[in-house]
Amino acid sequence: MKRIAVDMDEVIADAVAEHLLRYNRDHDEKLTKDDLRGKWLWDVVALDRHPALEAYLRSEDFFEVLDVMPESQRVLLALQDKYEVFIATAAMEVPTSFMAKFRWLERHFPFIAPSHIVFCGDKSILKADFLIDDNPRQLRRFSGEGILFTSPHNVAVAGFKRVKDWLEVEEMFL
Amino acid sequence: MKRIAVDMDEVIADAVAEHLLRYNRDHDEKLTKDDLRGKWLWDVVALDRHPALEAYLRSEDFFEVLDVMPESQRVLLALQDKYEVFIATAAMEVPTSFMAKFRWLERHFPFIAPSHIVFCGDKSILKADFLIDDNPRQLRRFSGEGILFTSPHNVAVAGFKRVKDWLEVEEMFL
Repeated sequence: MKRIAVDMDEVIADAVAEHLLRYNRDHDEKLTKDDLRGKWLWDVVALDRHPALEAYLRSEDFFEVLDVMPESQRVLLALQDKYEVFIATAAMEVPTSFMAKFRWLERHFPFIAPSHIVFCGDKSILKADFLIDDNPRQLRRFSGEGILFTSPHNVAVAGFKRVKDWLEVEEMFL
Repeated sequence: MKRIAVDMDEVIADAVAEHLLRYNRDHDEKLTKDDLRGKWLWDVVALDRHPALEAYLRSEDFFEVLDVMPESQRVLLALQDKYEVFIATAAMEVPTSFMAKFRWLERHFPFIAPSHIVFCGDKSILKADFLIDDNPRQLRRFSGEGILFTSPHNVAVAGFKRVKDWLEVEEMFL
């Protein structure tokens, strides 16, 4: 059985939407995902507001309230019939997120066994056939085949097979 | 550079000693590591006391107060010159342990970058050349070369290269 590793943020969990929502609310701004084309949120927000951006990620509930990316539950459940599915998230960048991320997965993806959840930093440690991730830096390190999941910040990135949503993941693998 | 993945409990952290200490203290017993030869603590403790054993592992400070295994700091630091070292622990079995394990590593192994820490369940997900682990079940799943780190419960296990302490790890790899 081939193995697929799947990233969390921006792939099954809409972290950018929550990040924008909190930032806009507190700073009286109206940034949208369209403003982030080709950029990270960190690139469009002034340096003196970066501590606020950091603080949102470190707040206890941030990773617990994220929306689920459309169709990701249905498609991941179907993928499990034909592939071994692991969730692999770079949680070590925000250690305060561990429990929130674990609980979020329990709630929204109860069919993923805890044994198939990986909190890591550098995804070169993953032994899998495929990695679906929005982060080109992680895909470059990964030893299997990297699939770039479209996200505002990566629209201009070339060199990977790309899927723009979970319907395209379904088409590619099922 | 070859990559070595290293387990935490019973390899760099003395979890069994702390588990025995708490169990003996609360149950007026005098179990020692010698009593665990060829067995897990769960095998020698009566079933009706298993909830207590569980509770120790889930208590917030358990994984934070563990003793460091002798020589593991010095040898791991030296290994980093010649190998890429990852710490990989089956933390998903006790989700309440995430922060305590992370803080324990920060305190005792500050030279291991967070990007090289992995919390997982099934260690078949690790892409590494070697895995040093006390758990034969994890070594069997691992795709690289498994090195069994001697622990009371595994003294009778055959079929793996074995090291009995960190001096033997040093000899094997350096």
